Amino acid sequence: MSDYHNASYIIIFAVQGVRNMAGTGAGGTNRGLYFDDLGAGQRFASETYTVDEGQIFAFAKQFDPQPFHLDGEAARTTLFGGLAASGWHTAAITMRLLVDGGLPVAGGIVGAGGEIVWPMPTRPGDVLRVESEVVETKPSRSRPDRGMVTVRSDTRNQRGEIVQTLTAKLVVPRRPVTEGSHLRDGS
Amino acid sequence: MSDYHNASYIIIFAVQGVRNMAGTGAGGTNRGLYFDDLGAGQRFASETYTVDEGQIFAFAKQFDPQPFHLDGEAARTTLFGGLAASGWHTAAITMRLLVDGGLPVAGGIVGAGGEIVWPMPTRPGDVLRVESEVVETKPSRSRPDRGMVTVRSDTRNQRGEIVQTLTAKLVVPRRPVTEGSHLRDGS
Repeated sequence: MSDYHNASYIIIFAVQGVRNMAGTGAGGTNRGLYFDDLGAGQRFASETYTVDEGQIFAFAKQFDPQPFHLDGEAARTTLFGGLAASGWHTAAITMRLLVDGGLPVAGGIVGAGGEIVWPMPTRPGDVLRVESEVVETKPSRSRPDRGMVTVRSDTRNQRGEIVQTLTAKLVVPRRPVTEGSHLRDGS
Repeated sequence: MSDYHNASYIIIFAVQGVRNMAGTGAGGTNRGLYFDDLGAGQRFASETYTVDEGQIFAFAKQFDPQPFHLDGEAARTTLFGGLAASGWHTAAITMRLLVDGGLPVAGGIVGAGGEIVWPMPTRPGDVLRVESEVVETKPSRSRPDRGMVTVRSDTRNQRGEIVQTLTAKLVVPRRPVTEGSHLRDGS
């Protein structure tokens, strides 16, 4: 148990290239939110993503070729009770929704830790969306140019049921001190 | 911090349908290893998977459309220093290698927890393989038909460098008591 709980881990998890900046607390930058813009309780919502049977088959065939992801008939007798998307497919779709504006954090983020939960499977026809909430922000002690932001992202289906929770500690840059004062730094 | 560390999580992570049973400790079953067959220190090795630029682009375009996954030139100036596969792509490839015989555990596994680590990115041309090791086995107190098995799976490139570590607590069925004694149970 101790080995398991003490194991170090990191998720590198970049949300650069945000295309769909919702105005939520954007603080006037079009490059996403800096550490200084973020606070516990702040929430973000993604667009939606509709998952069909063909997508589930295609992902599973490539990455997770097991009966409950590949064959609706065979899946009925498994613990899934019917065709289910691979959890890694749900994770990949979640990433797409985050990148497409669901988590408008300043570019080039490196997460320092995370957890993934799949309480129930994604099914054919599901319409997924991601709701993210800032859980905690902590300035870095050693690196004044960044902070640690814990974000919980719930992926929900069209009935509001959670199919995945991803909790990640993200390294988010602080707003550059020169921004708005100098166009060139270090000159 | 406490919220983060206390958050419950689960990975449902099925490795049913194992096609490539290496003989390692298989205990005579061709359906994968039961809880009773597994012990700390037991190791499994997968086949290999070669990742090319086209695959990286295709996955990223679909699930993680960010410059360092989509454009080698643009990627040079990012923290990745060049084209890198999405971490979720590395995770998906790892799952494929586990399903294809890299982790020959008895079908229909549900994991009770896990961690994912990407210490370095997967690059075009990388040849990935997965080495898994049983970290701990614990019989379930409440369910005599199963046990908990913690497995660490390191995904390595052709230079032996770890690009991902996935540590999962898997629920593994115990060998059915009737196996080898009765063909019908509950009669």
